[in-house]
Amino acid sequence: MIEMTNLLHGGDYNPEQWLDSPKILTKDIQYMKEAKINTVSLGIFSWSALEPEEGHYTFDWMEKIINRLYENGISVILATPSASKPKWMTDRYPEILRVDETRHRNLYGFRHNHCYTSPVYREKIAMINTELVKRFGHHPAVILWHISNEFGGECHCPLCQQAFRKWLKDRYHTIDELNKGWCTTFWSHTYQSFDQIESPSPRGEMALQGLTLAWKRFVSDQTLDYVKHEIKSIREAGSKLPVTMNMMYDFEGLNYYKFADCLDVISWDTYPTWHKYPDKFIAMDNGMQHDIMRSVKKKPFLLMESCPSSTNWQSVSKLKKPGLLEAASLQAVAHGSNSVLYFQIRQSRGGFEKFHGAVIDHYGGNDTRVFQEVKKTGEDLLALNELTQTVMKSEAAVIYDWENRWAMEGSAGPRNKGMFYKETAEKSYAAFRRQGLNVDLLDMEQELDDYKIVAAPMLYMFRAGFEEKIRAFVEKGGTFIMTYWSGIVDENDRCFLGGTPHQLMDVMGLRSTEIDGLYDGETNHLIPEKKAGFLQKKSYQCEHLCELLKVDSAEILMTYGEDFYRGTPAVTVNRFGKGKAYYIGADVEQICYDDLYRYAISETTIQMPVEGGIPEGVEVTTRVSKEHEYVLVQNFNQEAVHMDLPEGECLVGDASDALPAFGTVVIKR
Amino acid sequence: MIEMTNLLHGGDYNPEQWLDSPKILTKDIQYMKEAKINTVSLGIFSWSALEPEEGHYTFDWMEKIINRLYENGISVILATPSASKPKWMTDRYPEILRVDETRHRNLYGFRHNHCYTSPVYREKIAMINTELVKRFGHHPAVILWHISNEFGGECHCPLCQQAFRKWLKDRYHTIDELNKGWCTTFWSHTYQSFDQIESPSPRGEMALQGLTLAWKRFVSDQTLDYVKHEIKSIREAGSKLPVTMNMMYDFEGLNYYKFADCLDVISWDTYPTWHKYPDKFIAMDNGMQHDIMRSVKKKPFLLMESCPSSTNWQSVSKLKKPGLLEAASLQAVAHGSNSVLYFQIRQSRGGFEKFHGAVIDHYGGNDTRVFQEVKKTGEDLLALNELTQTVMKSEAAVIYDWENRWAMEGSAGPRNKGMFYKETAEKSYAAFRRQGLNVDLLDMEQELDDYKIVAAPMLYMFRAGFEEKIRAFVEKGGTFIMTYWSGIVDENDRCFLGGTPHQLMDVMGLRSTEIDGLYDGETNHLIPEKKAGFLQKKSYQCEHLCELLKVDSAEILMTYGEDFYRGTPAVTVNRFGKGKAYYIGADVEQICYDDLYRYAISETTIQMPVEGGIPEGVEVTTRVSKEHEYVLVQNFNQEAVHMDLPEGECLVGDASDALPAFGTVVIKR
Amino acid sequence: MIEMTNLLHGGDYNPEQWLDSPKILTKDIQYMKEAKINTVSLGIFSWSALEPEEGHYTFDWMEKIINRLYENGISVILATPSASKPKWMTDRYPEILRVDETRHRNLYGFRHNHCYTSPVYREKIAMINTELVKRFGHHPAVILWHISNEFGGECHCPLCQQAFRKWLKDRYHTIDELNKGWCTTFWSHTYQSFDQIESPSPRGEMALQGLTLAWKRFVSDQTLDYVKHEIKSIREAGSKLPVTMNMMYDFEGLNYYKFADCLDVISWDTYPTWHKYPDKFIAMDNGMQHDIMRSVKKKPFLLMESCPSSTNWQSVSKLKKPGLLEAASLQAVAHGSNSVLYFQIRQSRGGFEKFHGAVIDHYGGNDTRVFQEVKKTGEDLLALNELTQTVMKSEAAVIYDWENRWAMEGSAGPRNKGMFYKETAEKSYAAFRRQGLNVDLLDMEQELDDYKIVAAPMLYMFRAGFEEKIRAFVEKGGTFIMTYWSGIVDENDRCFLGGTPHQLMDVMGLRSTEIDGLYDGETNHLIPEKKAGFLQKKSYQCEHLCELLKVDSAEILMTYGEDFYRGTPAVTVNRFGKGKAYYIGADVEQICYDDLYRYAISETTIQMPVEGGIPEGVEVTTRVSKEHEYVLVQNFNQEAVHMDLPEGECLVGDASDALPAFGTVVIKR
Repeated sequence: MIEMTNLLHGGDYNPEQWLDSPKILTKDIQYMKEAKINTVSLGIFSWSALEPEEGHYTFDWMEKIINRLYENGISVILATPSASKPKWMTDRYPEILRVDETRHRNLYGFRHNHCYTSPVYREKIAMINTELVKRFGHHPAVILWHISNEFGGECHCPLCQQAFRKWLKDRYHTIDELNKGWCTTFWSHTYQSFDQIESPSPRGEMALQGLTLAWKRFVSDQTLDYVKHEIKSIREAGSKLPVTMNMMYDFEGLNYYKFADCLDVISWDTYPTWHKYPDKFIAMDNGMQHDIMRSVKKKPFLLMESCPSSTNWQSVSKLKKPGLLEAASLQAVAHGSNSVLYFQIRQSRGGFEKFHGAVIDHYGGNDTRVFQEVKKTGEDLLALNELTQTVMKSEAAVIYDWENRWAMEGSAGPRNKGMFYKETAEKSYAAFRRQGLNVDLLDMEQELDDYKIVAAPMLYMFRAGFEEKIRAFVEKGGTFIMTYWSGIVDENDRCFLGGTPHQLMDVMGLRSTEIDGLYDGETNHLIPEKKAGFLQKKSYQCEHLCELLKVDSAEILMTYGEDFYRGTPAVTVNRFGKGKAYYIGADVEQICYDDLYRYAISETTIQMPVEGGIPEGVEVTTRVSKEHEYVLVQNFNQEAVHMDLPEGECLVGDASDALPAFGTVVIKR
Repeated sequence: MIEMTNLLHGGDYNPEQWLDSPKILTKDIQYMKEAKINTVSLGIFSWSALEPEEGHYTFDWMEKIINRLYENGISVILATPSASKPKWMTDRYPEILRVDETRHRNLYGFRHNHCYTSPVYREKIAMINTELVKRFGHHPAVILWHISNEFGGECHCPLCQQAFRKWLKDRYHTIDELNKGWCTTFWSHTYQSFDQIESPSPRGEMALQGLTLAWKRFVSDQTLDYVKHEIKSIREAGSKLPVTMNMMYDFEGLNYYKFADCLDVISWDTYPTWHKYPDKFIAMDNGMQHDIMRSVKKKPFLLMESCPSSTNWQSVSKLKKPGLLEAASLQAVAHGSNSVLYFQIRQSRGGFEKFHGAVIDHYGGNDTRVFQEVKKTGEDLLALNELTQTVMKSEAAVIYDWENRWAMEGSAGPRNKGMFYKETAEKSYAAFRRQGLNVDLLDMEQELDDYKIVAAPMLYMFRAGFEEKIRAFVEKGGTFIMTYWSGIVDENDRCFLGGTPHQLMDVMGLRSTEIDGLYDGETNHLIPEKKAGFLQKKSYQCEHLCELLKVDSAEILMTYGEDFYRGTPAVTVNRFGKGKAYYIGADVEQICYDDLYRYAISETTIQMPVEGGIPEGVEVTTRVSKEHEYVLVQNFNQEAVHMDLPEGECLVGDASDALPAFGTVVIKR
Repeated sequence: MIEMTNLLHGGDYNPEQWLDSPKILTKDIQYMKEAKINTVSLGIFSWSALEPEEGHYTFDWMEKIINRLYENGISVILATPSASKPKWMTDRYPEILRVDETRHRNLYGFRHNHCYTSPVYREKIAMINTELVKRFGHHPAVILWHISNEFGGECHCPLCQQAFRKWLKDRYHTIDELNKGWCTTFWSHTYQSFDQIESPSPRGEMALQGLTLAWKRFVSDQTLDYVKHEIKSIREAGSKLPVTMNMMYDFEGLNYYKFADCLDVISWDTYPTWHKYPDKFIAMDNGMQHDIMRSVKKKPFLLMESCPSSTNWQSVSKLKKPGLLEAASLQAVAHGSNSVLYFQIRQSRGGFEKFHGAVIDHYGGNDTRVFQEVKKTGEDLLALNELTQTVMKSEAAVIYDWENRWAMEGSAGPRNKGMFYKETAEKSYAAFRRQGLNVDLLDMEQELDDYKIVAAPMLYMFRAGFEEKIRAFVEKGGTFIMTYWSGIVDENDRCFLGGTPHQLMDVMGLRSTEIDGLYDGETNHLIPEKKAGFLQKKSYQCEHLCELLKVDSAEILMTYGEDFYRGTPAVTVNRFGKGKAYYIGADVEQICYDDLYRYAISETTIQMPVEGGIPEGVEVTTRVSKEHEYVLVQNFNQEAVHMDLPEGECLVGDASDALPAFGTVVIKR
């Protein structure tokens, strides 16, 4: 992890667009200082400016910029320029362009449109990275490497096909193992050798789910391999500075958990559509993404990009209402970020994002509403610098596994119109969060020892020995919550035989017998049994999927209210070893999760961070240093709320009164 | 037709997926016997297992399976394996892969992805078919050949282009005839020779409707030619067993009527979305498809596939409610099927359809709800074995012509947002069925002599001398019902001149002058004339299309209620020769069809199968043997209904009480 | 302009489809005369009939037709046949087929599917045009050349890429200028030479808006170049007859204003969806298109195509209600057309448009409703022949600029879900029209000297020195109305720095600070200040976009009613020089435009054409000759309306009574 004593404030800076306007470059520095900006990201899309002709490097302009920033106390996150290559490169080496799933090679354009396998591309980026390290790797302004930008996409070129086959051979060893794993006998798709395998294509094979799943794993792994290649070039050139790459919101293309080891710090770019829906829901959703990023390494992370105003690429560019910028920025810190960085410092005059919000806009003054709100946020961060010495601890976790999602969403049935994995995971997440718990989001490879309560919604696939992990967790006293459509397939997406949830039927005390898909608009209801008095409503609505359960040792908490399975079990709890295992059989509404989880938590030894309850729309998190606990409270309602705040020193905000709309209070205790 | 004394019960069986699990194979037999299963379909996707390398046939496993089945009294429908080829074949002979309409050759994948014209593919399938006949063609277990699986799709490769040109030359003889037929002068698309013709393509020609129609005919004919090729290979290898191919629901791609002669028995695969809409409508729709299949050869057919539980490939996998499986299965028998077969006996562990319902699921027990319902259905079928000696007779028919649909839906205007041909045909079908009449569905090539009443909705195209057939039918005393948008074009989709319905204006006693398209949501109403007292409502709603009529000798039954053509004729009847000809000018609601057809039937000599009327949602059909008539009554309502049932022996169900929801009664008299 | 004393009546005529039916050709002439048809368009899709083999011209049939028409007093508009080439041409010269944006060459089909750059195609069309001129160019029947048909589409073939690069070089001179103009530094897309540039492609570059905009300009210019090539071939062959090309409704692909100079008369094809919405709105919209066509050359134009009945290619083929055909036809004349021409005289028997309405339909009689309405329209036109000696004068103008639209709709933000440029322009247009003013629609290159009031809605791009033009216009006393999202970018789509509206902040007396995008369904309201008493409602609803304004010298007329910018300025007026400049900050409802424009007009010296107001749904225009003014009044309501009509001679209709539904009155004074 990057060592720091100050929270970073700043963002992407593209001075190469303004080299012919020295007055503007001067004003940039002046305004940054005014806005308490201490860090910029540089060079993200500068390859053309750094290497305008092959092998001819022009770094002087960048050196001047870095020097000037340094003189003004501003640090630099230096990017490797691979996110967008110069035009000359594709003209000379067309093989670096991606081939799409229909097997057509792309033309030059957009960003990230190159093959991560290509030896030529890897050579070119290694060369310029080496030069960048030589020139700037030891510059005192530079604090962190930013590898490329927002990785994503896939390539189906012959080189990638070859790499895919090698990857498969490494994983399956023999073609028989692969055939068995993928059940190729179905539809007669048996392979005789690895050489016969081609990546999935709508013009070819899309029906062999084992292949599709393997391809997704390969694409993620091959991107990781490319990232490692870039890092290696930096290390070999002599830099020991930490590295990061900027991740994206709920990005399905890459299994970010697998990137934990090669990166020194996780960072990500957040662009919520604030005000599109009630902000409390958006804050909950965005908070979950922050927590995913923190959970990847179980360490503080960096907010690498966010928008000071409105983006230009969303369907509607809605202005942030006064105060929201500050609240959204501090939310990152509340969830474990040690930075608030924006895209971008100065708005570009042209190009695709010319209307994307910026600290300094086309008008160019510091008397704008946005500039003033950025400045206010900078002042908040100064008051919170000691948070750099803290970490976050969670006793609750939600399993949210990329490969599980790939497999479940890649399968046909039981509901091709929408399975709602993310939404369902978020219901568990929100039920924990509404009690004020810090929550980690884990994949199936992480350990569970640190947690007292774990939810694993829709865990369709069991991999990495997950069933043994759960058995041990419950046996030792943990509280575990599982839902419908769990334990169905192995890591090859091949169905388990003999009943589900696989190998956990005794732990859960039941067997799932059938699952009913509901059409959009169709509903059923869950009716609490009398003994489940902690469930406050008489009936909870469910939709999408209803599982039919055959209960063995489990205690029935709720039954179905309608259809031919009326009166049959829907929610249960089972004592197993020293622990308890809950099962939720249907896609039920949030309030049912809330009621159930509140009770389940209350049965554990978990301590709540605040007393007297948390009003809806208010977020509470805690960060801890060796000496102190910091309680961060934020109000994402459009109205002020009253609540009991903990005693302590108030670093930001005013704890003595109601919490205003979009208000934040940080208490040190 | 296949000779049989027992109704077939069973389904697709894929033991090649379980060859390494002998216990499972043993249990399969045990469960089949328990469920009264007497037949399985084998080898449908087994090519890879039967010929793992080119020319190397491995049939032993199949022989063992067939022997074991035979020993246990289970018959085999043996498939030719062409629905899915092995990977090695496309690697060695890439020319067998289809070329799509954009002229790109596909990669290996999915099913049916090969060119039906390809000589290589035809040679390969002939070779393995020959081997299959030699090894299994005389095995006493084998009762029927199942050619490939669910044919469909098209190929635009050079070989198909060549075959298309030859097909055109055979049909048109000279390029001038073709130019004239297709009106190529429009937009200057005149051809100088057959060699210039290319198949329709969104990258080329899609606006020449004569070409598009010819291509659809060719694709259907070329598929038929391929089917004949497979059958020939079987016959030449020495098998005289009957052959079938499994057809699909309302499949537009192939004119199934043209397949009647080359197949010994028609079979089809039914997958209704039960419970998505009220089941009575789904039953009506599914019944129409059963009746199409029976009408293709005017003989009993086989239900080749159906789902014991829910499919996995529909948008939502909805469970069948208790009793529905039995009702749906017996509906097939009620409409002329001599089998109830499922896809599949045992659920596959992997592959695209791993979550498709099966008699035996991944759990693997016989104590499941589904298994018990399959078993009950098997018991019903045992009680109905004498139905194998019956046929069905219909006095009512609906013309539902594939080529008419291709032409009408391929034309631009008068309503590109939807013409609703199938829905309109179904209104006539339902109006007959609600009176309890057996109904045949015919194309324009079939004869009308057997019928007393014939409806020909939206018969846009007249071909095969249809206008003469109708004239003769009415002249001799038949009752004929025609609707708007009829008799517009000839078999080349070229408009008739001089007024429509072409050559039937005197038979109908009117001329159609204009047709008005209504936007979605727009309506008009039909108002009965006083003399049409048999029309029970004061006004019937119509939508989509309203034709303006100029009446000559016809009697006006209804007029329009709104718009500038208010008060002008909308529904008429004309006496012609010894018969009557009704005309319906607009897309009017079902109840209007019901009222009109009830009256029209009452004016004929047709006898109703039951007295006292049929409640809504109840289906009545009759099958007759030399000695007996069997009346089959089914209730597709979710509640029990009371109705007067005919006297006689009750083979299934209880005739003495109300008919329960999803209940069936079969009475022999 | 074509010299004429009679208004033209007639339409597209395709006798080449009926050469084997002499009786039909004879009847055509008889019916045309009966319907007062004096002109037909000939040869539009006749290339195959005129040159069935390469270099072999068969013109005799056409000569016979032209002679016969001439003998019967019917003039000919003769088309060049390039809209659809013969099949033999693409077989021999496949390079004339278009290459699409994915870089795949099309196959033969549809219409206009050839490269406008292709030297071969240009040679072939020049050759046949030369022959046509030689044979028919001096025939007394022929009065006008009709170049090709409905130009549109683009080609990305190597020849077009080359032409595009040349076009860029001509415009930008150096690659540095281009890089600067397009801001290629953003995303590192800097070009080193013009040779590197490729046209936009979804498989390549779509994110460089400077490139996309340049490509749209090039496509329009290259089409114009092609049109000039065809005209040159006609002139070089010796014809001095005027030329036209038929334009289309709101066609974004071509900047029609740039075609003004090369065409002698503008013509267009109108196909409104009458009766889909209330006809008064459709009439307003169609009127605006007529006025665009008149404004291109600021001269009377020709209505080249319209449908006598319903089209066949719209989603629903709705019949025209009685009287609508006459009203729609005369609306063209009311807006400056000297013709009413139809597609088509006789309906084709086959081809894509076989169900497109025609004067003579497949039935073939003259006793149809449509034929009788055509005839009535022909009689009206006879009564209005003196209008050929008139022009139209407008004191109001709306700026509606193609390149502005390309740039604005090609940019990302502030509302990718819809900016509604056309709809917004139409609000200004309608507000003028509801006062009975003739309105011109101008691009930014036209002069403003003739006008007293000019509206420039959403003028995102300033080009052609527009800001200076506006400054001078207001300074000299003009009334100018501007809206939100104006003056944002230069002609390269590069943002202006220093505040917007660029260079007009003093003229408008304000600066725009931010713009808020509203989601679909979201609204705000504009609240009139007390002093703006001419605004009749207490509140006007706005949606989509709300601009935040910082007012300097402007007077505030309205403020926002909601959101965080409640109470801030929304509509203003500023006195500048001798004139006034209004600013509308949000996408507000039509009635607000109506109230505001009524007041703004009343403050000018403009005279209204009628007194006592114009009922909603009634259109008033004026045409003037040297001696007379003609007032044309049309009622597009479905009910009769009463209004005060001007005194004078009544050429069409009855001025003494209420104006019936779809009624027209033409008064000469």
